[in-house]
Amino acid sequence: MQATKSPSSLVRPDHDSVQRALGQVGDAWSFLILREAYFGVRRFDAFQSGTGASPNILTDRLKKLVTYGVLEKHAYCERPPRFEYRLTVKGLDLYPAIVLLMRWGDRWLDDGAGPPLDLVHVPCGHVTKPVLRCEHCEGAIEARTMSWKPGRKRKR
Amino acid sequence: MQATKSPSSLVRPDHDSVQRALGQVGDAWSFLILREAYFGVRRFDAFQSGTGASPNILTDRLKKLVTYGVLEKHAYCERPPRFEYRLTVKGLDLYPAIVLLMRWGDRWLDDGAGPPLDLVHVPCGHVTKPVLRCEHCEGAIEARTMSWKPGRKRKR
Repeated sequence: MQATKSPSSLVRPDHDSVQRALGQVGDAWSFLILREAYFGVRRFDAFQSGTGASPNILTDRLKKLVTYGVLEKHAYCERPPRFEYRLTVKGLDLYPAIVLLMRWGDRWLDDGAGPPLDLVHVPCGHVTKPVLRCEHCEGAIEARTMSWKPGRKRKR
Repeated sequence: MQATKSPSSLVRPDHDSVQRALGQVGDAWSFLILREAYFGVRRFDAFQSGTGASPNILTDRLKKLVTYGVLEKHAYCERPPRFEYRLTVKGLDLYPAIVLLMRWGDRWLDDGAGPPLDLVHVPCGHVTKPVLRCEHCEGAIEARTMSWKPGRKRKR
């Protein structure tokens, strides 16, 4: 830990990336809409039945997710005008975070019944439990094995 | 994908683990409180200055996180009575999900300024970007490489 400082010895940045991320997807409805999108859902009615959101809430959240560039709105029918919502690269990139949230729910909130669904890693064909690893040593990333230091600012 | 079915061909379980997880930590304040806890924060005042939450909101969320077993309340002073909040094993176990949420914020919401902080993997000493891998083949876990099937129910 020589190169780093203990958490309490440094003033952290006011706005970190967790806070920014939560500004865009920090409510339960947005997470549930994204979960549906990862299952292949694209249309309003299907989002509604999958999330249980009211039309007003769903309209609002879809609009926000489009504004933030997490979903894209595409016309799939001209008459009558009909739209669907597709994940962008930015939206797809949030998948690992939501998978780990799901796994946490599996471990701690399943009432002993076992996970409601198993994830399959298509390239190898196995039912898998995703693990978070260090890109350097491949060791596990856990709260107690991590520290931090101020970010290297890029030139703008 | 032989052993699995496409997302739309199966009725999914009504309540999955993402939904359950969001029931316990599905609001931005709870995430921010946990972020502070991972930085080593334990006391009410420090949670307040770190999150910007009002005393009412903070009291409510801390109480909920204790009820859910994510934080534990410990007396650190008897006269006057003073308490601190410590992460439980369940709370520590949510760290990887929050780290990935942070990394997503770093990649997509940093306005080109670079990440506000760098994570250090203490066992190897490197600044690291955590990667999510399959426990079997160590391949990357990404939205487009994953499928699912109904969970294997345990006997109760």
